[in-house]
Amino acid sequence: MRNIKLLIEYDGTNFVGWQIQPNGRSVQGEIKKAIKQITGEDVNLIGASRTDAGVHARGQVANFKSQTKIPVENLKKALNSILPDDIVIHSVEEVPDDFHARYSAIEKTYRYFITQNKIAIGRNYIWFVKYEIDFQKLEECARLITGKHDFEIFSKKGTNVKNYICDVKFAEWKKENDKLIFTITANRFLYGMVRGLVGAMIDVARGRFEIDVFKKMLIEKSNQAELMHAPANGLFLEEIRY
Amino acid sequence: MRNIKLLIEYDGTNFVGWQIQPNGRSVQGEIKKAIKQITGEDVNLIGASRTDAGVHARGQVANFKSQTKIPVENLKKALNSILPDDIVIHSVEEVPDDFHARYSAIEKTYRYFITQNKIAIGRNYIWFVKYEIDFQKLEECARLITGKHDFEIFSKKGTNVKNYICDVKFAEWKKENDKLIFTITANRFLYGMVRGLVGAMIDVARGRFEIDVFKKMLIEKSNQAELMHAPANGLFLEEIRY
Repeated sequence: MRNIKLLIEYDGTNFVGWQIQPNGRSVQGEIKKAIKQITGEDVNLIGASRTDAGVHARGQVANFKSQTKIPVENLKKALNSILPDDIVIHSVEEVPDDFHARYSAIEKTYRYFITQNKIAIGRNYIWFVKYEIDFQKLEECARLITGKHDFEIFSKKGTNVKNYICDVKFAEWKKENDKLIFTITANRFLYGMVRGLVGAMIDVARGRFEIDVFKKMLIEKSNQAELMHAPANGLFLEEIRY
Repeated sequence: MRNIKLLIEYDGTNFVGWQIQPNGRSVQGEIKKAIKQITGEDVNLIGASRTDAGVHARGQVANFKSQTKIPVENLKKALNSILPDDIVIHSVEEVPDDFHARYSAIEKTYRYFITQNKIAIGRNYIWFVKYEIDFQKLEECARLITGKHDFEIFSKKGTNVKNYICDVKFAEWKKENDKLIFTITANRFLYGMVRGLVGAMIDVARGRFEIDVFKKMLIEKSNQAELMHAPANGLFLEEIRY
């Protein structure tokens, strides 16, 4: 059996998320269907990251085992010609048998985009925040996040995870004209964690609660303020390192 | 009566175009409906440019006469709170009685975006051209376009226009990473003209026909090649000068 690795871009707007679900269109489902159409095989398609409905990916990675003899370049062309236009396969590679899109990942990078001006064009790719934002407070929060922390409080409930410690290697806010861009790299992420962090940081920066409350969330896991998760449409899975 | 001028951004993807049409959602129709809801008036909403289905605008201008006494800032807020999220009003101003969004315009600027890499994210805002492109030929074409020419051959049929002369003040191709961006400013544009020009220039640059054929289209209005209109989704109405 060959082990095939895919590098995938998708526009999350019209998907229920990465994972196959009983109702609705999933990225995993569309790609599995396309592979079946090409190879006749019902493969187990493993995605590195289970992105939520509305979340986008420029660098999702998936792998599957296959008997197909089709060369990787042809497989790429065939997939892109079958797949709907909100999914694009950027590369197809043959990888060693033990490569696992989820377990082999060393670190992942997400980016979150915010605009301070209401826009129509590109509105599915950015969160419009109308409040005045204290950028220095965003920078302070990003510094606090960096390092090993228990992020349970920022994640969404309902998964079987028991270890909530993530090692954040890089967390930074940038200003580009009227845009605010948050980049975060960590060894792993909890379900809903980036959106929870962005929501909390924006709440600090717009003065809804003090930075001390944020610190306590991070250090003592004490939740004194109601946590607001930032909307899905501003979030991008940018890159996965192996 | 006050004369009210609107500066409008819209995502053309889900519209039949600017103009009200018997079937389908139009930008003009949505804004007229919102004005009626706010002022009770059935206004004559004059748009500067009748953009086609799928064409976007960052700088569409419209005006209407109204009895309303609502201050312009409140009118802007009210419109944005009622309008669907693919239309955003960026400014509302009171202008002299003789201002007419179409007839008072001195020049308009359009931009056309092309990507050479297939993408999922943002695909409604750019044309994917898979052919190899000779950028120098694009630049040569842009130089030829500049100045006063009869552009009938590049426009779509079916309008009542009799004068096909447009004065192109500026025409330029730029390369930004894997993107090609065409900017054109003229005193006026014919129906479908920018998409006709972009289609022909790309045909020259990918080697479908020679630059001499393009020259003859422009100078002698001789159509030796079948003209291909570039798709609507790459086109943006950027700015209108008064």
